Amino acid sequence: MEKEVVLGIDIGGSYTKVGLVTQKGDIIDKTAFKTDAQKPFSDFIKRLKAEVDTLVTALEPGVSILFIGVGAPNANPYTGEIENPPNLNWGAATPLAKTINQSFKLPVTIANDANAAALGEMFFGAGKGMKNFVALTLGTGLGSGIIVDGKLLIGAHGAAGELGHVNVDPHGRSCNCGLRGCLETYASVTGIKRTVFELMADMTEPSPLRNYSFETMTGTAISEAALNGDPIALAAFDKTGEILGSKMADTAAHLDPEAFILSGGLSKAGDILLNPIKTRMEHHLFGAYKGKVKVLLSTATGDNAVLGPAALAWTELENTRVA
Amino acid sequence: MEKEVVLGIDIGGSYTKVGLVTQKGDIIDKTAFKTDAQKPFSDFIKRLKAEVDTLVTALEPGVSILFIGVGAPNANPYTGEIENPPNLNWGAATPLAKTINQSFKLPVTIANDANAAALGEMFFGAGKGMKNFVALTLGTGLGSGIIVDGKLLIGAHGAAGELGHVNVDPHGRSCNCGLRGCLETYASVTGIKRTVFELMADMTEPSPLRNYSFETMTGTAISEAALNGDPIALAAFDKTGEILGSKMADTAAHLDPEAFILSGGLSKAGDILLNPIKTRMEHHLFGAYKGKVKVLLSTATGDNAVLGPAALAWTELENTRVA
Repeated sequence: MEKEVVLGIDIGGSYTKVGLVTQKGDIIDKTAFKTDAQKPFSDFIKRLKAEVDTLVTALEPGVSILFIGVGAPNANPYTGEIENPPNLNWGAATPLAKTINQSFKLPVTIANDANAAALGEMFFGAGKGMKNFVALTLGTGLGSGIIVDGKLLIGAHGAAGELGHVNVDPHGRSCNCGLRGCLETYASVTGIKRTVFELMADMTEPSPLRNYSFETMTGTAISEAALNGDPIALAAFDKTGEILGSKMADTAAHLDPEAFILSGGLSKAGDILLNPIKTRMEHHLFGAYKGKVKVLLSTATGDNAVLGPAALAWTELENTRVA
Repeated sequence: MEKEVVLGIDIGGSYTKVGLVTQKGDIIDKTAFKTDAQKPFSDFIKRLKAEVDTLVTALEPGVSILFIGVGAPNANPYTGEIENPPNLNWGAATPLAKTINQSFKLPVTIANDANAAALGEMFFGAGKGMKNFVALTLGTGLGSGIIVDGKLLIGAHGAAGELGHVNVDPHGRSCNCGLRGCLETYASVTGIKRTVFELMADMTEPSPLRNYSFETMTGTAISEAALNGDPIALAAFDKTGEILGSKMADTAAHLDPEAFILSGGLSKAGDILLNPIKTRMEHHLFGAYKGKVKVLLSTATGDNAVLGPAALAWTELENTRVA
């Protein structure tokens, strides 16, 4: 019997992940390559085409690809374009959906990467069985995808769920977006790095982190230091978790979610991050939500990042079939 | 020909409004009475029954009431109960839907008052034709109702849209809910009153507001003083608008709404409140939303407050007819 799959493409600032995914969420093959986003978009498409061709050539007979789902930073489902992405040097409005459609001769649906990730959690990951939750991707920035009543929250202009730009402090840190004090300047890999540098200035304790330059320091280095009991790293996770937890309480006051699902480099620290988040969120939660909002780790991102775009493709495909 | 109407009931901390409303939003008759929420719930139901009976008796022949919609503080659509309302002395869990159903022998649907108000705006008011907006009621507290993709956002536990308890300042003003720095302690009639008292302590300018005690001061007095150029009142509206505007930008980062629709005592000040809100919201908006989010005044609350509960009833009735 014919096996039906969709092609999931997750375009990140550093890596692009590609995979063929069944409706049950089985990844039958996948690959990843450097996005090289400083080069032109046409170079990226050539490389993408080559990578997908390799996957397709290796397929067993009888597998048919029905649809393509793409998650990318600042991708707008209404326009089909990537709009002003801060980490991709492809110009102000990259015609993503159109170009991929023309290259692969298959129907394409696109979404903001974090929105696709939220769908991935709902269909195949930690959000299975939930109809109201928020997925937070704590990577270079803070991405978010909101599921309301079993559907992705899109918004009036296709740009809902930019929780990275909720305000923590109007006089706070400069953000790439031009504002000050955005949540992602604190609660992301870049954010905790900034916090570590602030704490190294403030505290006197010795720390292995004092051997890194701002350019060389990584989220992994901070996590490892924290796991080894380094007081600066631990304080940085505490501060990050406290800020994120308090803002998650505000998000709960909007959406009354069942859970937050965390992914991205920062979330790999596990309880060192989750504990202060949970404590501070619970403290700030309005009575109606206290004790009711879970904080979970993602199971449909990272190495499985193609599940989000695949979920997006399957959703769109089902809509097309019904219509 | 038979004329079909629903009975809309808006239960407020001070007044309860009752009206008979057609599917087009024509209020064919209405009345209002003091809620007297310090007396038992059974007294309220007796009074409500009497008021509705009077309306029904006065009806022209051929009008049939099909459904009842009720908006009330802390009303939970999942349980049918009013849960721990701060301004109604009816106990922890008042069986609102059940009691009204038994009293009137008609199907009943209930919602949080601000949620019902948001539906009222969408069907009959300033939100007509919009599918994504946020209704904010700036009264004794700050209530909110969120419309996403043409539907009321309910949330996982029936308690979405508690924007009055978004945090402005973790060390800020005490809130009735037990937290500190909640938005409604600043952006509501009570909130601006607190701001006026803070400013009277801080500033030296003479002001008619200095003749009021905290108990006797009203939102109307503050609005009138502002319209007459009183510097303390104007500063209070500026501060209120700035705080609310900055938090509305955060709400936009969640929901990407087309508009905010403002109602309640505080909104009667018009541009004196709207101007600082718009300026500050625009300043804090993430790039994707700048210039795209309207701030409007309600047309389906106040004297027309029965439109919200009526919209709720008509929505539920349509769902019932389809199912």
